[in-house]
Amino acid sequence: ALYPPCSLCSPPPESSPCSSGSESSKDSSRCSTPVLDAERHERLREKMRRRQDSGDRWFSLEFFPPRTANAAVNLISRFDRMGAGGPLFIDVTWHPAGDPGSDKETSSMIIANTAVNYCGLETILHMTCCNQTKDDITGHLQKAKRLGLKNIMALRGDPAGEEWEEEVDGFNYAVDLVKHIRNEFDDYFDICVAGYPKGHPEAESYEADLKHLKEKVLAGADFIITQLFFRSETFLKFMKDCQAIGITCPIIPGIFPIQGYHSLRQLVKLSKLEVPQEIKDVIEPIKDNDAAIRNYGIELAVSMCRELLDSGVVHGLHFYTLNREVATTEVLKRLGLWKEDPRRPLPWAVSAHPKRRVEDVRPIFWASRPKSYIYRTQEWDDFPNGRWGNSSSPAFGELKDYYLFYLKSKSPREELLKMWGEELTGEESVFEVFTCYITGEPNKNGHKVTCMPWNDDPLATETNLLKEQLEKVNRRGILTINSQPNINGKPSTDPIVGWGPSGGYVFQKAYLEFFTSSEIVTALLKVLKKYESRVNYHIVNVKGQNITNAPDLQPNAVTWGIFPGREIIQPTVVDPVSFLSWKDEAFALWIEQWAKLYEEESPSRMIIQYIHDNYYLVNLVDNDFPLENCLWQVVDDTFELLNSPAQQ
Amino acid sequence: ALYPPCSLCSPPPESSPCSSGSESSKDSSRCSTPVLDAERHERLREKMRRRQDSGDRWFSLEFFPPRTANAAVNLISRFDRMGAGGPLFIDVTWHPAGDPGSDKETSSMIIANTAVNYCGLETILHMTCCNQTKDDITGHLQKAKRLGLKNIMALRGDPAGEEWEEEVDGFNYAVDLVKHIRNEFDDYFDICVAGYPKGHPEAESYEADLKHLKEKVLAGADFIITQLFFRSETFLKFMKDCQAIGITCPIIPGIFPIQGYHSLRQLVKLSKLEVPQEIKDVIEPIKDNDAAIRNYGIELAVSMCRELLDSGVVHGLHFYTLNREVATTEVLKRLGLWKEDPRRPLPWAVSAHPKRRVEDVRPIFWASRPKSYIYRTQEWDDFPNGRWGNSSSPAFGELKDYYLFYLKSKSPREELLKMWGEELTGEESVFEVFTCYITGEPNKNGHKVTCMPWNDDPLATETNLLKEQLEKVNRRGILTINSQPNINGKPSTDPIVGWGPSGGYVFQKAYLEFFTSSEIVTALLKVLKKYESRVNYHIVNVKGQNITNAPDLQPNAVTWGIFPGREIIQPTVVDPVSFLSWKDEAFALWIEQWAKLYEEESPSRMIIQYIHDNYYLVNLVDNDFPLENCLWQVVDDTFELLNSPAQQ
Repeated sequence: ALYPPCSLCSPPPESSPCSSGSESSKDSSRCSTPVLDAERHERLREKMRRRQDSGDRWFSLEFFPPRTANAAVNLISRFDRMGAGGPLFIDVTWHPAGDPGSDKETSSMIIANTAVNYCGLETILHMTCCNQTKDDITGHLQKAKRLGLKNIMALRGDPAGEEWEEEVDGFNYAVDLVKHIRNEFDDYFDICVAGYPKGHPEAESYEADLKHLKEKVLAGADFIITQLFFRSETFLKFMKDCQAIGITCPIIPGIFPIQGYHSLRQLVKLSKLEVPQEIKDVIEPIKDNDAAIRNYGIELAVSMCRELLDSGVVHGLHFYTLNREVATTEVLKRLGLWKEDPRRPLPWAVSAHPKRRVEDVRPIFWASRPKSYIYRTQEWDDFPNGRWGNSSSPAFGELKDYYLFYLKSKSPREELLKMWGEELTGEESVFEVFTCYITGEPNKNGHKVTCMPWNDDPLATETNLLKEQLEKVNRRGILTINSQPNINGKPSTDPIVGWGPSGGYVFQKAYLEFFTSSEIVTALLKVLKKYESRVNYHIVNVKGQNITNAPDLQPNAVTWGIFPGREIIQPTVVDPVSFLSWKDEAFALWIEQWAKLYEEESPSRMIIQYIHDNYYLVNLVDNDFPLENCLWQVVDDTFELLNSPAQQ
Repeated sequence: ALYPPCSLCSPPPESSPCSSGSESSKDSSRCSTPVLDAERHERLREKMRRRQDSGDRWFSLEFFPPRTANAAVNLISRFDRMGAGGPLFIDVTWHPAGDPGSDKETSSMIIANTAVNYCGLETILHMTCCNQTKDDITGHLQKAKRLGLKNIMALRGDPAGEEWEEEVDGFNYAVDLVKHIRNEFDDYFDICVAGYPKGHPEAESYEADLKHLKEKVLAGADFIITQLFFRSETFLKFMKDCQAIGITCPIIPGIFPIQGYHSLRQLVKLSKLEVPQEIKDVIEPIKDNDAAIRNYGIELAVSMCRELLDSGVVHGLHFYTLNREVATTEVLKRLGLWKEDPRRPLPWAVSAHPKRRVEDVRPIFWASRPKSYIYRTQEWDDFPNGRWGNSSSPAFGELKDYYLFYLKSKSPREELLKMWGEELTGEESVFEVFTCYITGEPNKNGHKVTCMPWNDDPLATETNLLKEQLEKVNRRGILTINSQPNINGKPSTDPIVGWGPSGGYVFQKAYLEFFTSSEIVTALLKVLKKYESRVNYHIVNVKGQNITNAPDLQPNAVTWGIFPGREIIQPTVVDPVSFLSWKDEAFALWIEQWAKLYEEESPSRMIIQYIHDNYYLVNLVDNDFPLENCLWQVVDDTFELLNSPAQQ
């Protein structure tokens, strides 16, 4: 052995007043990755424990799987938006009638998979056991594990029909499912179970139900989420009773902000709960006024949550969202729990798949299509970590992700046509679309261009810094699809360009990526000779003709951060090899998302097809990050050369 | 396949005037390392070819193995000094009588090993075959390969005795050795052979000897180095004759600057060459005036070398140094070939072992003891590359390197005693030694302190930037052994702190490492609380008590560089795990190099022993590299706390 482990754990010298060191010295195992964010490596129950220990309050959100593919696309956007508020986790319910374990885009399994892998959310998948075979259940659990799901809410589910009888070897209660998970999957999953503050409606008694709950915990459940309730006293009494019989795991109150008269009635019917008279008295008179009921529901939830949090025994709140945003978000904001943290752990959206825990480098090309990048690299066994160089495989998955439901454009065809032109009259009308997207101004027909085939969202705040220059070049046929300004050491807490833990400094090399005509490329290449040592370029057309001055096909780090006590983090690179995979995707989007809006053989479609067939995709990096970005000068020089009489 | 290889090699678009891109695109294999220095990956014959193609002139240096261990230590220092002039390679001769393949510190094998591995020099090992068995020779070659040697000069050697007869299956000529190397080791070694501009003295004729030479080349030799000669015409005729019979490989003239009357006579006798009358005429009258002969020799060599280089057919010159420095260095400087390039490929001295080609990260602790670091990591199979994190093994070799001949102090005991004190009177006299080393001022007895147990050389230029502050703290018992200033983006060509290719920017976090008493450590720890988020520290004593605030034992990058078109290079880290290995070495040096200068039980020895047993080794990193270095403030605060009445 290199050194006795005790040398790392031994106490500080007697005279030393320092104890801060010993805590980090406890772990004598060598850490192989530059851990930026300890949370990324923790399991849910550890995160919960750490939040509780640090006195940090948190919330979680429950969703149910949607019925249609369109609704699924909307739900995924909602995950992104509500994920921004910082939930500790979300959970997805399980409806045996809806084929919940299938590969359909609306199944519980696939929705949970999307939340974890594509939205980066810690996710609990519900699972019921009643009327299912052991093999079915094991199959579901194996699939969940394979997809990267790490948490299961173990439920009994509703018996089918009235004549339900216990099966001797079957799964009759949630506790059987908990035992099965622990038997078959050891400690792999974090397990959550349901608690009933008023007792389960079918239980012999409140006390009997508490005993059932204790059995579930003893069988291996890690924490409890309760059924909804209408008064804080109900929960606080329940919690006290749980503790009295020795249940010590976290118990999280389930909060149901009343959002409408009918949804309340339906829920009450299903859960067999009784609405207290004082609530009925308020609601009945306003039952046809949705807004009034919602406001009342928000007020009611906020005051009940305040009581719970003030009790000192509640650290987290679980919200039954009914897949709606407004009420829950409003309650969370009023409670001060909604924390839109502008600080990102990395410049791009991380995935929560356990395989990707160490991932901290990606090519810049997919900056606006992170879900596509995750999809195309989902088969990788290792993820680049620390640097792109020797840890990544360039074997990108096949290019069919524009058919994937979570990458579908949120806008319908008619809307896209209004933005991108009902009828194109030439390449210039395409330039016009790009320019309107950059400026945010309406197009000739008065429609704002809020997305592009390469960008589903309006311009990033950071890109806004370059707006003026971008507008100028797009007007002239430099059709930009990705860019970043140079940054020479801004604090990692900078609200626009910052990322990573505080106390660090972030840097960027200026980057510009665009489509342009071969005429412009010819002039550009002449100009680039003057910038040979300063600017790296890759220029490629749809056929794969490739011109570059990248040394030995090495990746160029274009975003990096220096943090206290760590190795350097370099999360974005311009990688020449990946660029050729990205090129296929970037060119295909012209056809798949734009040309196909128009009739075959129509002039509009042929214009897009012409651009697809003849334009080049170009990326430029200005390596001299401490100086003023020279890429605009490169573009100016190119136009000047094109306009010079000698060139004619 | 991800993309057809042709997409990387296809020609640029017709209209494109650019060809610079295609050359770097030829290599379609993915590069897994951030190659800073292409030369590091080339074999000798490729380097030679590239220099020739680019019109770059070069030189090489021949040495013979020394007789004594002390002479070996001196020769290694000479390698370091002459290596600074930028030889393309050095070569080490082989003397069958001197046990050249053994593990003795004076053997050809071990000297060549040291040149490659510890001095980072491209090295050719001579090898003779005459009177040796096939097994012996194969054994030598295997050992050479194992040690990281990549080039062999294949020679016949002198037959033992007069009665030499050819053995039928034996090695009778150099060509047999060339064939054997190619048979047994394929293309692993670059092979050099000897050419005789006047013909080999034992050859039937000049023409017959040329034919032998051609055979050696056809058998697989990569280039030729010639025997010495006295007139440029001799070489130029020889070269022409070689080309005439179809020898096309590089032929390098061997240059012998006359350095003395006796050495010239001896050489002439051995080589059976005749000294031209015009040289004899000059030398004979001044044969007792060494300086005059050396000056004449330098003049003669310079003018002959100029003629060779001016001929246009000579690209490199090989110097027979006779293990002496002055004459050869002088000739090289006058020719403009001596290129002391202040620019380092990395901040530390790289090793030329093929296993270490990718190595580009080391812990900062061994900054002044690079040979010890190389020795202690020589068994590693992989070397950290790109980052320290996941590519390195912390299994450092055993701590016995202060016995190794190439780490022996160059100064004898008497000199060390004059520098470090014939008699120590207390800890303060130790502080005094450290302070004198920093200031460069003579000590009380008028002797300058030019080395320390932890630093074999005077203060580095970079450390000089910190001189004033270092002096102040050493006087007060903060005994510094390593430090670097913070650097916020200086050009990579900066003469003091620059490294790596041009066009880049280098950065550093301020670092300070010192021994100090437990009293000071106690105050320091109180002060460090104020700097908790800014300063990382490791504090350890000889028993291994360890106090640190390093997050999760992660390494902290303290030197890094940003270069055009590359990932970030981070060549120096403060690694908490390696620090515990370094600690053993750093503490042991007190005893091995200092205490043992004194008699056992003597007060001087007991003072050093006391420091060894009771002091702490401390390192501090200021993570806020863009701000003014706060480490001096930390030390000032510590002394202030110690002096405050409350503390008493």
